[in-house]
Parts: sequence; structure tokens; C-alpha cells
Amino acid sequence: MKKVAIVGGTGYTGVELLRLLARHPGVEVCAITSRSEAGRQVADIYPSLRGAFDLAFEEPTNAILAQADLVFFATPNGVAMKQAQVLLDAGAKIIDLAADFRIQDIGVWSKWYGMQHACPELVAEAVYGLPEVNKNAVAEARLVANPGCYPTAVQIGLLPLIEQKAIHLQHIIADCKSGVSGAGRGAAVGSLLCEAGDSFKAYGVAGHRHLPEIKERLGVYASAPVGLTFVPHLTPMIRGIHATMYAQVQANIHLTELQAAYEARYADHPFVDVMPLGSHPETRSVRGSNICRVALHQPQGEDTLVVLSAIDNLVKGAAGQAVHNMNLMLGLDEKAGLEIMPLSP
Amino acid sequence: MKKVAIVGGTGYTGVELLRLLARHPGVEVCAITSRSEAGRQVADIYPSLRGAFDLAFEEPTNAILAQADLVFFATPNGVAMKQAQVLLDAGAKIIDLAADFRIQDIGVWSKWYGMQHACPELVAEAVYGLPEVNKNAVAEARLVANPGCYPTAVQIGLLPLIEQKAIHLQHIIADCKSGVSGAGRGAAVGSLLCEAGDSFKAYGVAGHRHLPEIKERLGVYASAPVGLTFVPHLTPMIRGIHATMYAQVQANIHLTELQAAYEARYADHPFVDVMPLGSHPETRSVRGSNICRVALHQPQGEDTLVVLSAIDNLVKGAAGQAVHNMNLMLGLDEKAGLEIMPLSP
Amino acid sequence: MKKVAIVGGTGYTGVELLRLLARHPGVEVCAITSRSEAGRQVADIYPSLRGAFDLAFEEPTNAILAQADLVFFATPNGVAMKQAQVLLDAGAKIIDLAADFRIQDIGVWSKWYGMQHACPELVAEAVYGLPEVNKNAVAEARLVANPGCYPTAVQIGLLPLIEQKAIHLQHIIADCKSGVSGAGRGAAVGSLLCEAGDSFKAYGVAGHRHLPEIKERLGVYASAPVGLTFVPHLTPMIRGIHATMYAQVQANIHLTELQAAYEARYADHPFVDVMPLGSHPETRSVRGSNICRVALHQPQGEDTLVVLSAIDNLVKGAAGQAVHNMNLMLGLDEKAGLEIMPLSP
Amino acid sequence: MKKVAIVGGTGYTGVELLRLLARHPGVEVCAITSRSEAGRQVADIYPSLRGAFDLAFEEPTNAILAQADLVFFATPNGVAMKQAQVLLDAGAKIIDLAADFRIQDIGVWSKWYGMQHACPELVAEAVYGLPEVNKNAVAEARLVANPGCYPTAVQIGLLPLIEQKAIHLQHIIADCKSGVSGAGRGAAVGSLLCEAGDSFKAYGVAGHRHLPEIKERLGVYASAPVGLTFVPHLTPMIRGIHATMYAQVQANIHLTELQAAYEARYADHPFVDVMPLGSHPETRSVRGSNICRVALHQPQGEDTLVVLSAIDNLVKGAAGQAVHNMNLMLGLDEKAGLEIMPLSP
Repeated sequence: MKKVAIVGGTGYTGVELLRLLARHPGVEVCAITSRSEAGRQVADIYPSLRGAFDLAFEEPTNAILAQADLVFFATPNGVAMKQAQVLLDAGAKIIDLAADFRIQDIGVWSKWYGMQHACPELVAEAVYGLPEVNKNAVAEARLVANPGCYPTAVQIGLLPLIEQKAIHLQHIIADCKSGVSGAGRGAAVGSLLCEAGDSFKAYGVAGHRHLPEIKERLGVYASAPVGLTFVPHLTPMIRGIHATMYAQVQANIHLTELQAAYEARYADHPFVDVMPLGSHPETRSVRGSNICRVALHQPQGEDTLVVLSAIDNLVKGAAGQAVHNMNLMLGLDEKAGLEIMPLSP
Repeated sequence: MKKVAIVGGTGYTGVELLRLLARHPGVEVCAITSRSEAGRQVADIYPSLRGAFDLAFEEPTNAILAQADLVFFATPNGVAMKQAQVLLDAGAKIIDLAADFRIQDIGVWSKWYGMQHACPELVAEAVYGLPEVNKNAVAEARLVANPGCYPTAVQIGLLPLIEQKAIHLQHIIADCKSGVSGAGRGAAVGSLLCEAGDSFKAYGVAGHRHLPEIKERLGVYASAPVGLTFVPHLTPMIRGIHATMYAQVQANIHLTELQAAYEARYADHPFVDVMPLGSHPETRSVRGSNICRVALHQPQGEDTLVVLSAIDNLVKGAAGQAVHNMNLMLGLDEKAGLEIMPLSP
Repeated sequence: MKKVAIVGGTGYTGVELLRLLARHPGVEVCAITSRSEAGRQVADIYPSLRGAFDLAFEEPTNAILAQADLVFFATPNGVAMKQAQVLLDAGAKIIDLAADFRIQDIGVWSKWYGMQHACPELVAEAVYGLPEVNKNAVAEARLVANPGCYPTAVQIGLLPLIEQKAIHLQHIIADCKSGVSGAGRGAAVGSLLCEAGDSFKAYGVAGHRHLPEIKERLGVYASAPVGLTFVPHLTPMIRGIHATMYAQVQANIHLTELQAAYEARYADHPFVDVMPLGSHPETRSVRGSNICRVALHQPQGEDTLVVLSAIDNLVKGAAGQAVHNMNLMLGLDEKAGLEIMPLSP
Repeated sequence: MKKVAIVGGTGYTGVELLRLLARHPGVEVCAITSRSEAGRQVADIYPSLRGAFDLAFEEPTNAILAQADLVFFATPNGVAMKQAQVLLDAGAKIIDLAADFRIQDIGVWSKWYGMQHACPELVAEAVYGLPEVNKNAVAEARLVANPGCYPTAVQIGLLPLIEQKAIHLQHIIADCKSGVSGAGRGAAVGSLLCEAGDSFKAYGVAGHRHLPEIKERLGVYASAPVGLTFVPHLTPMIRGIHATMYAQVQANIHLTELQAAYEARYADHPFVDVMPLGSHPETRSVRGSNICRVALHQPQGEDTLVVLSAIDNLVKGAAGQAVHNMNLMLGLDEKAGLEIMPLSP
């Protein structure tokens, strides 16, 4: 059994890692840390974990963390970059579920995240942990940047179109809708049931931190700059992201070819489900699972393609993808611990 | 007091008409009909109306309806067109909350609604009841087609842009999200709390009946064909529509000019609220009210404009707009009975 | 027009007062205060109020408040008691929506609220503002204690049984369920959509502050001590309280007599709706309105009576009842501003 | 691998059985039947099952079902009793998830279910499948009656009190709250999101079919008749039952003794979690899992005990308990396939 540790385990990605790792056949959680909750039993804060863990939160010291084969950072942005080098030097591998290593362009990163980067050289080394793109690189990596939730849904939806050079690279639109758990477990007025419930709104239209991440990644796949408008919305549910993407198709490309390209592209990727043409993936069809379901449309036969992509933001959009990356980095079966059925209804 | 009647009062638009008319100072409901519920008290089916109405459902005979100054059809598509001529001949005015008179192009209508039209000549006479466009014509009309819910939110959002010739008319996108009440009170599996709750999905991407309605109307405003992709989504809430619209702005047009144009365009329209630049209207901020809130964005200063528009689909998107039209047709204050504050939280 | 002021207007009871007063025919809001938001426009914090108020939050000085004919305290417990005497001396009437004046037994109050009372002599003067019990006394009062939300639902449900001496006074049970708005607008983890949504739980079973309030009031009506077990629960909705009450009926009392007693008891009270025997009031049937709907049952004809009582906790359970009390205190029609139809669905 | 078949697999208990059996290590689903959906792929109706099953619905013939080692009936009441004898004769074991075999008193059953029983002799043979009571008997049984959802939550909550003779057997109250999935997947108006959402109500107060089941069972444990008032409520969530039970404690019994009795009673039962004294189990803490969490209270030290019990109605209240019974009947580890972590948030 490999040993893993979790830094910052009191948020939703932390508890979701625990849910997934509780039944993982190849690893055990040797430590979980939280400055604010040090000393408390995990199950006292998360009754859903009662009986699964006999583990208390600890202070996040290097000594404790370095015992692990792999350390997850489920912390706010800017934490992992300060502790990464020491842990790598001690021989631990690292997966950061926050944004510290997601963007290669340090200037762009600093602008959007409002801080200096503590270790630009590790950014260069870090592998972007989208297994559908970087499976082999992740397997070799010491340090993996776990993708953002919106970026995961959008990239999986657009990747085959870009790789096939099937669409114009300007005026791509990603209209994305997220459940409220994407805002985290922090006590914010805007995330109250009485504020976010039974209502719908856009937010961050002027600019959201996932925009530069998506643009950089799509640019890599296209080997060219990509014009993207990204509008996130808050939808009154707990889990789930639904991305609706719009792009102008190149002339002379048939929808059935594109469908075939999607199916081929993801044939070896167990967590992407390309649905039949004309399908409408529901977020609940992936609730609690690591699956991304994708469907392709060409409404009225006109030149605008519509791609629908649905994930559970806490699983494929966060903790599940992190466990997938962990499996690859530790040489385990990539599906280990992740063959969880969606909870529907 | 003017007398009004409601045909087909057992659905959500019917009960919503009753809610609004219960406190209307200038009209009284003289009859409400339903074949399936004839004989039952309104308040037995809708306990929320207890104490407000002493009224039983009746059979929808012409004799009963012709007593009214104005008849609302809150019926399925295809009903009003069969009864309209008789009632008009008897001197009643008509507002159809369904789609029978919304589309001027009879061929297009027949294709999308899958039936022959029973009275094309009345379609030509009918006025499209969007008061922000047709206030005077509605005031003169005998027969008004109450707009669809999505078309209301989209038209109010895009109207100033089109009138100002500020955008390219191709590749306009309307990504719309509706609460489940838009699907009506019919007992359908897809509208169950356990199917539509805590989940999000697109539907009707291949083509939805509100597409031709929106395209025809935008074409009228533009005096030119408009290219539109319209994707409706189901969001897990009861009431509310949020439309997110994307269009390419013409060169040399500044956002502040557009904001001024919106404010001027709707200055005399009491139910449209142009919010400050950069706002994010929430559907709950209009819950239960006849208000449409609109906000304009130009993300990252690029050439894609984003317009956000929020309504209560049962009020501004249906019954409230119908009462607004009724006020105009009966010579009442256009705000009568509609100065209801939104219910938030 | 009478002038009213609101102290502490940023919480849910504050905004609900504004919603109700925005359309009230007999009063105008001359001031609204908030230390934390002083200087901000009301409509910036509550977009649902845009267009209805041109009013900014101010500091809660006595000078500003004393201009009002009546001052509402929509503040945390312990605030009104410190400012009440000064405002009364200045001639203003007061309604406290918090708990400072609800319990006559100062020792009990201090134990449950964990503080010394600042003005016990005003507690003795204060009238408990349940109009169904104290309509005349409220009309004469300078200082009214607006009842708690649970106590309102429970008292209206049990009052006729106690007045009729129809039940045993021991082992009464009030199993109550509240929407999350009862917890207020404070940023608490437990009120997040992701914590309180799609879940159900009891809380405060060991003892909740509404227990001594209910027990004291029922004791007054019974002229004897009452044995009560009160268990509040959190249900995943925004508004609404449903109280399910159980009591042992005295021998030889028939259910139809009790139903008649309920109907007689509330005949002159416009905001209590005694439903037909065997009804099941839904909280949505009173959503946004000041109505309490009550229904009586005797399951299987055994000796346990079941009373169901439903209110909107923010209206009849808080701001609506306060406006009702205000109407009585200012000599207005008791229904003024409160004839709002429930919003359903 | 043992073979199991499911009769009537299109409802929520059917799909939940599939979710659980998809990852069960010891059985495979050899057939699933549905008259209405015969010929359709399971995954077409339940996209959440895509990739897990390559199985189409079939007609429910005896020939197909008799191939199975065990047949689940996830059918309406009255179906299993007509097919049970033939399948038993063919050597298959049976678990009925409906009510045909839950009540031993045939007269009571007929009265509440409104039909004649087709095989009273099999009722006498059937074992009531509450493993916490009948583990050994279930292991020996050919025919198991899977308990109702409410009865499961109530019995587990009250069992130790009754076995310990700790409470008076009259005036026990079970105030129960269920998510909407308890009403099934049938297209009923009352289960629509717009009817059941954001609202709370009691139903069936006059009498619910789970009342006689609970009373008969508690009577067995008490060896005496039990007086019970059972009031079910509908709460706006998908899954979960929360039972709040009230009973009068016998004199001279201390709460800490009772807590110890609960812990001892369930020590060998892996799916019951006795929480620390004073806990408040949330339904989400068991969402998707087979766990029942129970907590004991004695508010204000008075003589009314309050027991809280939370289950997922589709798992411990239906399909999960059925799989538990199946494991026992087929000689498998009782936890096989059921060690699923709750999904929280």
C-alpha cells in the first residue's frame, strides 16, 4: 500500500479525496492536515466519513508530509508553491488541486492570481494533469497541476475539434454552469441556500481565473492563439458542471465525421463517454463519478457547432481527476478506486 | 370593473393569471374554464388561492366566454385558433398565451407546431404582444399573441443592439436557462423533482419552437434575416429564465454608448430595468414580478458582447405580460395590478 | 402617511419589511440603518428592491430614528433593549422583531439568551404581538414584542385546543420544520446550499430558545404549566415553517366540535385559514403571504390529535406579523399592505 | 458468480439495484424485465448506467426469471404474490421490495392494500428482511419481504427501547420526513419539481400503509400491542428519510444506560451507526449508502425520549437492504457490494 497525505483537508475537495480514498485498493491516507482543525477527528467534521477513517487533522509540517509517497494539496491558491520544493526534495510526489502550477506563463498567472509566484522553475517542470492529454507525462511526473473544474469540462469538449482543425479558432464561446460546491465550503453569503437556491445568475463575466487557463491550454492544442469568451454561471444545485460550447465549423466537414473523431479520440480514455449524436448529457448522470459525458450537435444544420459536456465538478473536476493522476504517478491501474457508479436519481 | 375570463385555467399560467388578477383594481374574473375540472372550486385545486376566489371551473362554452370583455387563452397550442373568431364576433377581445398567433409566417408555424392553422387571416390581424415594441398597436388590438417566455427574455436583451445596428446579424447565440415551471403542470417524468432536481441539462438543441419565433421577430427589428443559435437548458429551480446572449459588436462602437442606448430605449417602459454596466442579474431578483432585468458586458474588451437578461417565466414570460397587454387593450393604467415586489429571498 | 424606520435592515427580516412596506398605502420608510453598510444604497445590496426605494443605509442614531412614528428593530437579540427607552421617550412606538421582549420571566430569558436584561421594566410593559390573541392590547401598546417564527406557528395551531381545555397539558409535542432563511443571512457554513441543500436534519433537540417562549405563552392561555417537547428541524427550502403538533385529546370530545371551535376562534382573524378537516397545508400555499393555514386530524380515531400549521417564516413568522402589529398600533386597517397573494408554484 | 434477475426494473428501486449490483463482486444481473420497456437498452433509459451494463429490458416470463439464483421484485404491490410460487418451485429465491409479504396478518394487509392476497401460505413462510432483527432467518429463507422505507428507519430507531422495555408502549409518535423519490418514478403531478420543490407538507395523516407494518413489527418485538401515531411528510429533496420518534421513558432509566444499550444492540450490525449522545444525523451523511445513523436525546431531562434516525430511502430503505438480504441468502459476505461511501456534500 502506498501512502498519501492531504494538505488542507477541510474543504470540499479534501473531503471528496477522503471519500474516494476510503475505498481505494492501493493507497492509504497516512496524514491529513489543517491548521484550523488540528486535533479534531475527521469524522467529527464529516459525519459521512464515520467508520471509514480513524484519523485526526494535524499541523501541516514537512516532517509529517514527507513520509508520504504522494501529497495532495487541497489548499487555497498560493499554498502549494511555498511547500512544493521541500517535499519534492524529500522524495514525495505532489498533486496540487489549486492553481499554482496550471498556467505556464508566469506573467499571466501573476496577473490573474494577484501574487508573485514562489517557484517559477517548478511551474516549468509541472505537468498539466489532464490524463486525456498527458497520460504518459503524468506517469513520469513528480509534480502535477490538477486542472480547474471548468477547464476540464471545456477542454474535453473542444479537444477533438481543435485537434481535427475542424473549427475557426476565433469566437469560440464556452457558456458554463456550475453547482454551488464549486465555490467551496467557505462561509460566504453568496453561497447560502437562501442566496444561491432557486435562482440562476452569471458571475465573473468580465473575467474569471479559469479563462487564461483554458486559453493557454487550447492554444497549446491548436499551436495558435484561440479567441474564447467564457461565461460562468451559478446554478442552484450542489454538484455538477455543464459546459455548452459554440464554435463555427470549417466548411466541408460533416457532423458524422466529427462524431467519429470524438469516439476515436476518447476510445482509450475510460472516463470520457462520447454519447450518441443528439444526446443531452445531464449532470446527474455523472454525479459522484469521475466520468465526463460529451455530446455533439449541429443545430438546424447551420455552421455553428454545439458541444455539451457534463462532469461532477468535485470528482472529474477536482478530487477524482487527482486520484486518476495519482494512480498514473504511482504506477497503479488508472481506474483504481474510481469505478464508482453515478448516483442517480 | 371590466370582466375577464380564462380558458384553461388549471395550468401554471392559469393559476398565475388568477394570482395577479386576484388583486387587480380594474378587472374581475367572471369565468374560468376547464373541461377536466368542471364543477370543482378553484381553491380546491390551488390552496394558495383560498379566500381570494369563490369561483368554480366551468365548461368552456362560447356563451360563458362571450360575456367577458376580454378572454385569456391559457390553453395548449391549437386551442385558441379554433375559438377566436366566434369570440371576436361576439365582441370579446382575446389574448392567447399559447403560440397560435405568434408567428406571421404560416408555413413556418405549421412546420414547427405540426398542424394546419385554423385561421390564418386572424394571424395577420393579431398583434405580437411585446409592449416594449408594440405598446400602441396592442392598445388598438382585438387579438394579441402573448410572446413565448424565452422569446421575451431574448428580444428585450437584443432589441437595442439590433435597433442600433451595433452587432453583426450572423452567429448570434442565445444560451437560455429556464426553471422547470416552463414545462408546465403536466405529469411528465422529466419534470419530476427527482429527475429535474439537483441536475442541469440542455434540451431541444436540434430545434425548439421558440427559435422560429425569435428569428422572425429579430428579423422584423433588423429588416434583415438574422442568424441565431438558440439552446435552451433546464435548471433545477421553479421559476425564472436567464438568457445569456453573445454577439459580435461592429467596429468603433463603445460599450458606454450601448449602455446609454439601452437606458434610453427602455426609459418609458416600466417593466424593463437596465442595470449598471457589469451587473449580473439574478432570476430571484425578479421572482414573482413582471420585471425584466438586463445587463451588458464586453468581456476583456474583445469584440464579443454579452447581454444578460432575467425574467420570471410565469410573469413577464407569460401571465404578467398578458395582464400588461390586457391593461393596454382595456384602456387601464399599464401598471395596474402589476406593481408586485419580487420575492427575494 | 406615517413614517417608519428600520434598525438593522440588512438581514432577511429587514429586506422583507422593505418588500412589504414598498407597497404599503399608509406608511413610508423614512430611514433604514446599518452600521456595516452605512452609506450604501438599499438597492445595491438587494437588487430585488431596485426602483422601489431611493434610500441609503444610515448609522442608527437616536436622532434619525426618533423622527419616525414607529421603529422596527430587525436586529440581533440584545440590541433593541438598549435603545428602546430613549425612543419611547422621544415618542416613537417600537416593534422588536428579535427576542428582547418576548418572555415575561426575566430569569428564564436571561438563562436562555445568555445575557442580563437591560430594561426589565419595559418587558413588563411590552405586549406580545400575536394579533390573534392580543389585537386590542397591541393597538394600545407603545412597545410590541414580535413573536418568534416557530412560536407563531405552534401557538396558532394549539390555541383553540388549550382554550377549549380539549387536551391534556402534558406530553404535548411540536415537531417543527423550517426553511433555511430562519437561520438568517449570516455567512454560516451550516446554511450553505451545499450543507443544507438536499438534506434534512433536526437541530437544537436539547433545547432551543423558542421553547421557553412557547411554554410561557401556552401556560398563559392554559392558566397552568404545559409540558412541551419542541424539536426543530432544518428542511432544504428557503421559506416556510411547518409545525406538526401532537396532543392527547380529553375523553368525550368529538373532532367535529374541535373543527367548529377552530373555525369560530379564527373567524375574525383574516390571516388564519382553518382548512377543512383532513387537509394537509403546504408551506408553498402561504409563500410570501401573511397567512397561517391550519388543519386538524385525529388519525385512526385514536386519542392523539394531530394539528398541522404552515406559515411563511419571514412573513407571518416575522416581517408580515410586524406590519400587522404596526397597522394596529398606528390605527390603520389591519390588512393594509398585507393582502399579498401567496406565490405558488 | 451467482445470477440474479430484476422484475420491474424501470422505477427508482430498480435502477438503484442496478447501481449497486454493477459493482457487486459476487453476482451478475442475468435479466431485467419491464413490460413497457421491453427491447430497450437499460442505459438508454438510465444514462447514469452507460458503460456498466449491456442489458436490455425483457418481458417478465417465468422461463427467463427461473434461470436466476435469486429474483428481485421491484414491482408495484400485488405483482410478486402472483409469480412467487412458480419461481420458488423452479428453485429461485425471491426478495420482494414491495409490500406483498411484509404483514403477517392477512386481514390487515387486505384492508390496507385493497386487494385479496394471492398466496397467504407464502406470507406465513416469508421472512421479514430486516437484517438487524432477522439475520439468521434471512440466511435460511427462500422468500424475503424487504421492509418499507419508513418502517426501516422507525424500527431501527425504536428497537432497543422496546427490547429494553424502556418506554411506555402507548402514545409513541413517529414523525417522519421523506425525500420525493419515495413516491417513485411515476408521472404524478404531486411529485413534480414545481409542486414538491421549495415546499413542505404532511400527507396521509389519516392513515398510511406503513402504519400497520410498523405496528405489527413493534408488537412482535414488544410481545404486546403498541400504540403508534405515524405522520409522514414530504420534504423537498431527492433521497433520504429522517424519522423523529417520541416516547415516554419508564421511571428510573438513565439516558446513558440507553445509549449503551443502543451501542451493544447494534455492535454486530455493520450498517447501523449509533452516534454519540446529542448528535443530529443528517440525511446527506448517508446519501447513497446503506447506513442508518441513529441518535438518542432526552430534551431538558424530562420524560420524553427523542430518537433520530436517518437513512437513504432508496438504499437502506429499499435496494441496499435488498442486496444485504441477498448477500445473506446467497451465503456471501453481508457487506459485499455495499461498502459504498455516502456522497456528501
